[in-house]
Amino acid sequence: MNLEIEITAQPIAPRREPPEETRGRLGALAKFSGIVRAEENGQAIAALEYEAYPPMAEHVIRRIIEDIHRRHPCDWVRVAHRVGVIPVGEAAIIVEAAARHRAEAFAMLTEFMDRLKQDVPIWKRRALTAAELPAPQKP
Amino acid sequence: MNLEIEITAQPIAPRREPPEETRGRLGALAKFSGIVRAEENGQAIAALEYEAYPPMAEHVIRRIIEDIHRRHPCDWVRVAHRVGVIPVGEAAIIVEAAARHRAEAFAMLTEFMDRLKQDVPIWKRRALTAAELPAPQKP
Repeated sequence: MNLEIEITAQPIAPRREPPEETRGRLGALAKFSGIVRAEENGQAIAALEYEAYPPMAEHVIRRIIEDIHRRHPCDWVRVAHRVGVIPVGEAAIIVEAAARHRAEAFAMLTEFMDRLKQDVPIWKRRALTAAELPAPQKP
Repeated sequence: MNLEIEITAQPIAPRREPPEETRGRLGALAKFSGIVRAEENGQAIAALEYEAYPPMAEHVIRRIIEDIHRRHPCDWVRVAHRVGVIPVGEAAIIVEAAARHRAEAFAMLTEFMDRLKQDVPIWKRRALTAAELPAPQKP
């Protein structure tokens, strides 16, 4: 299995293709994006701030993916988690899985997302209102 | 629910964003691509040919999505099915679902794919070997 893990303070790159060598073998490509919503516990928010301990987060993500892979073999998995301040409408996490058949790809995504919050040292630190948002950076 | 259905003889357009008015409401975006593999029943192939009766296929797809939506409400669903000759490595179907939470989006995708082959009048007509592939069209 080809596994890519990325913990990044930047917006998650929108699209990556499975590696060329998997072409012809893959029948199923599944992707999940977890997006920041405009409310948190009934309050209107403008962003969420996530915090992580990256080496440990990567280690635990790898262990979870390898465990799921033993039961639901996939050819390629990508996990990208954004940290820092993430505005409403932008992705906090993207998980992609490619496999011969769809059952494995779906099982990888759903099981990984169920275990992520429980086991991986990445936390929602706080919700920010519009007034608390950092000023946009000049390009 | 915003529902987009497309039966097309062209390669499926790679990416479409959920409608702007759903921004802030959506926490989950799930996408499945069903891709033509290089073997079919143990034989090496170069392409699959799909055939459809489009008005009926669209009607049945709409009915299935609306039925799943009653139990797993989604804000936006897109189903794009390609017909005609589809080369290995290219998508025959793409299904996307956006919802407040991931459970609904995943349920929409998995249940729809389970019911697609059973109920929708789109058939695999034949598998083509490399020698049977139509010559590529000049641009």
